[in-house]
Amino acid sequence: MSDTVSPSNIEASRVTGTNVYNRAGETLGEIYDVVIGKRDGRVKYAIMSFGGFLGIGEEYHPLPWDQLEYDERQGGYVVDLDRDRLEGAPRYARNERPDWDDREYGRRVDDFYGSPLLPASV
Amino acid sequence: MSDTVSPSNIEASRVTGTNVYNRAGETLGEIYDVVIGKRDGRVKYAIMSFGGFLGIGEEYHPLPWDQLEYDERQGGYVVDLDRDRLEGAPRYARNERPDWDDREYGRRVDDFYGSPLLPASV
Repeated sequence: MSDTVSPSNIEASRVTGTNVYNRAGETLGEIYDVVIGKRDGRVKYAIMSFGGFLGIGEEYHPLPWDQLEYDERQGGYVVDLDRDRLEGAPRYARNERPDWDDREYGRRVDDFYGSPLLPASV
Repeated sequence: MSDTVSPSNIEASRVTGTNVYNRAGETLGEIYDVVIGKRDGRVKYAIMSFGGFLGIGEEYHPLPWDQLEYDERQGGYVVDLDRDRLEGAPRYARNERPDWDDREYGRRVDDFYGSPLLPASV
């Protein structure tokens, strides 16, 4: 495998901390965590952290995994999302934690990004 | 959703650190990381760390994700693997890192555990 081809399989710990850019090349945030389906073995969301300082005031945006494209040149993920639109995106604060099994919540995130619905928990 | 039902979707950061037991209830190690497919969105492996002290001498065993069952009672994952068999399982040392896109490596891990082959990189 050539060094210029990004790997397909990667440790979650190497995904976290990676920058996220929009198509204009602006930094939106960085990957904070990844949500995975224990039973169906699917990667559901990348959680992007945004703003704040030393974690204070930081906000977390779940992005449907299929919305992320890795860009070799920038060394980060690109999402088709401008900053204005990010303002209206589903988010939660540091002291909150969504119920990832709540289908309504999943639907809201997926609808916002136009992704397929989060499959029902099995 | 009842508190007695374990969630289906979970942050990778909550999977790491979880104990792994065999069917006899012996501790085999703990989850150190998770390998995910960037392009196909699938969870490939849980990496179990085993042995060592403060990371020194620690070994890492990739376990096909579908081999892990979460056991509510023990609060950890159960894998059908006795300690003797673990001795012969694919592993790597702290200063090593497998090429997760190497199909031969994936085949060796999957064959050992009798899991389906790692899908070809796409």
